[in-house]
Amino acid sequence: MNTIYADHAATTYPRAQEVIDAMTAYMKEIGCSPGRGGYRRSLDAARLVYEARMLLAELFHVPQPEQVVFTPSVTYSLNLVLKGLLAEGDQVLISSMEHNAVVRPLTRLAAERGIQVVQLPCRPDGSLEPGQVKRALRANTRLVVLTHASNVTGTLLPVYEVGEILRGTDVFYCIDAAQTAGVEKVDFTDLHCDYLAFTGHKSLLGPPGIGGLCLSARAAEITKPLVEGGTGSRSEDEYQPPFLPDKFESGTQNVPGVAGLAAGVRLLQATGLKQVKAKKTALTAAFLAGLEKIPGITVYGTKDAGTSAGVVSLNMEGLDNGTLSLILEQAYGIMTRSGLHCAPLAHKTIGTFPEGTLRFSFGLTNTEEDIDAILAALQEVAKERN
Amino acid sequence: MNTIYADHAATTYPRAQEVIDAMTAYMKEIGCSPGRGGYRRSLDAARLVYEARMLLAELFHVPQPEQVVFTPSVTYSLNLVLKGLLAEGDQVLISSMEHNAVVRPLTRLAAERGIQVVQLPCRPDGSLEPGQVKRALRANTRLVVLTHASNVTGTLLPVYEVGEILRGTDVFYCIDAAQTAGVEKVDFTDLHCDYLAFTGHKSLLGPPGIGGLCLSARAAEITKPLVEGGTGSRSEDEYQPPFLPDKFESGTQNVPGVAGLAAGVRLLQATGLKQVKAKKTALTAAFLAGLEKIPGITVYGTKDAGTSAGVVSLNMEGLDNGTLSLILEQAYGIMTRSGLHCAPLAHKTIGTFPEGTLRFSFGLTNTEEDIDAILAALQEVAKERN
Repeated sequence: MNTIYADHAATTYPRAQEVIDAMTAYMKEIGCSPGRGGYRRSLDAARLVYEARMLLAELFHVPQPEQVVFTPSVTYSLNLVLKGLLAEGDQVLISSMEHNAVVRPLTRLAAERGIQVVQLPCRPDGSLEPGQVKRALRANTRLVVLTHASNVTGTLLPVYEVGEILRGTDVFYCIDAAQTAGVEKVDFTDLHCDYLAFTGHKSLLGPPGIGGLCLSARAAEITKPLVEGGTGSRSEDEYQPPFLPDKFESGTQNVPGVAGLAAGVRLLQATGLKQVKAKKTALTAAFLAGLEKIPGITVYGTKDAGTSAGVVSLNMEGLDNGTLSLILEQAYGIMTRSGLHCAPLAHKTIGTFPEGTLRFSFGLTNTEEDIDAILAALQEVAKERN
Repeated sequence: MNTIYADHAATTYPRAQEVIDAMTAYMKEIGCSPGRGGYRRSLDAARLVYEARMLLAELFHVPQPEQVVFTPSVTYSLNLVLKGLLAEGDQVLISSMEHNAVVRPLTRLAAERGIQVVQLPCRPDGSLEPGQVKRALRANTRLVVLTHASNVTGTLLPVYEVGEILRGTDVFYCIDAAQTAGVEKVDFTDLHCDYLAFTGHKSLLGPPGIGGLCLSARAAEITKPLVEGGTGSRSEDEYQPPFLPDKFESGTQNVPGVAGLAAGVRLLQATGLKQVKAKKTALTAAFLAGLEKIPGITVYGTKDAGTSAGVVSLNMEGLDNGTLSLILEQAYGIMTRSGLHCAPLAHKTIGTFPEGTLRFSFGLTNTEEDIDAILAALQEVAKERN
């Protein structure tokens, strides 16, 4: 049986050969750690990491490469922001579409540091009216956190409009670009944001285990690291170095991960980001159009593929989404993700809590034929149900 | 020019083909994320991670595989322990041979949480009299942190004796096994410790970017995570799941790293840990013996190869260690690490602060011929100096 992977919002698959080759090349030809020796192989590793930093700075339009720090995951990046910035009495605004990577640390900080968390209610399709941010600002608002696109519905949030609202204020602004980096326009400068958290293993086509965070100058200065330790710099000092990127990069780095991520970004650049977006939009549009013809299917989130990051959530009448996911895999080889997608708040917003939805998410390796096959499978299952 | 890698304390090199193959196999044949979908490839990834957990639990003699959690690095693991356990007014005992991965987070916690940090002075060779721990215990002693072996001198600390002293008390006990896991006996049960922090990319032969932490039941219960977020479990909950390993493993895991680490451990097991230790001891003993015959060389740390983790620090009279490192690389192809090795406290203990030392560290891939060649090079440099 042919298989169709429709879970790109979880991770990219199949893995690009160029990414695998870059990881292997590092392991075989360099192998050593950056900043941990003066010999050539250590310098080669440092150069590899620096080039990756430059690539990402260019991709996200970040002024200086040092403003891009590598982390193990976007979850880590978001924890770094929340725990490194927020203090007793601060208020933080989040959308009601945020992932548990934002909600869970904030739940803890609310209890431990008396942080006030205000959820800005999104519309049932997951969209947000940007004026809500303006109206919710208070004297103690320290931070606004928005996901660029929901991992449940794909709905894009008005992150640029909110950036204009916050521009010039002393409120810090954090974007979770887990679902959009590598597909949508993610422009650190135009966003006027302080933090841009991203992961390497989704639309940036890198391997799992590598992510990052871009920081504004003021954010870099004020934010405390999540992890302190050896940086290979200022070894004499019992304090963490205050400069970028070392302040936020302690311990031996995941250099194979960085190498793989850089190869992924190069691959994206070779394809062209506009082409990537156009393809994802076309696939999503075709899928949404086809779904309309299948009886008993409810689609959540935006119905306009142009305002979606290529993620579609649905339920089929009379069939649990977990069961539907299993049928699709076992009878048709179609891989999807059912349930709550680590984002219960988003499911409450779109009215699918606690049952969740079945999520389809598309990537560069999907084809129109995949969409047709998925639609045909859903049609068949729906027919059998009646 | 042939090259000789003598910086195994920084990272293992060259990388074993089996490790590279395991990473590639994951990327090509599985590719997906564990716990993020119900389809076979996601389950295959979960199985891979579980098998790695079992392997490490077996290696370290940890009662349950779930008590082994994967982290991005040993630095992260140590930060997790310190920040997740210590509270206002706690006292923590550390040896004076600790790495900045322990010292830097504690410097911050001392300022922020009023933690009292007591450094137990080691002897000039880096060794510790275990009775010091007993005498330093106070009513508010919450934690003892010891490196199993110094990354500067290789000197083994009496971690088993201290384990016996702390056994049955309410003092938590943390071992930093960065330099010993995969060479020395690292037995979680016999150590009677609460935390065993390890890295994958040194003597465990895995890739950079993967490490871990073994936790006792009481430690697992009381320690707060460093990072909260999506775990693929209890998605409905805005609180972090309280159970192992999910409590400490948020976000998409570094599965290629886990796969590489598992392959490294299997390789070690195939070689036999006793053989690994015997080889490292023989190389270190030959090196120490040869150094005695070279004029103007001062060796720091233990002179007994049996009580060393295969790390030798030295200085040559009249030659800066950074320059010596450079000469060894450029004229002889020998890779070493000069300076402070991210462990200024250890250098203060052995009397080499702030100049540092030149560090040689050996691994499985070194040979007797390597030792002879390094000794001959040092002999030649020493002669030219006179």
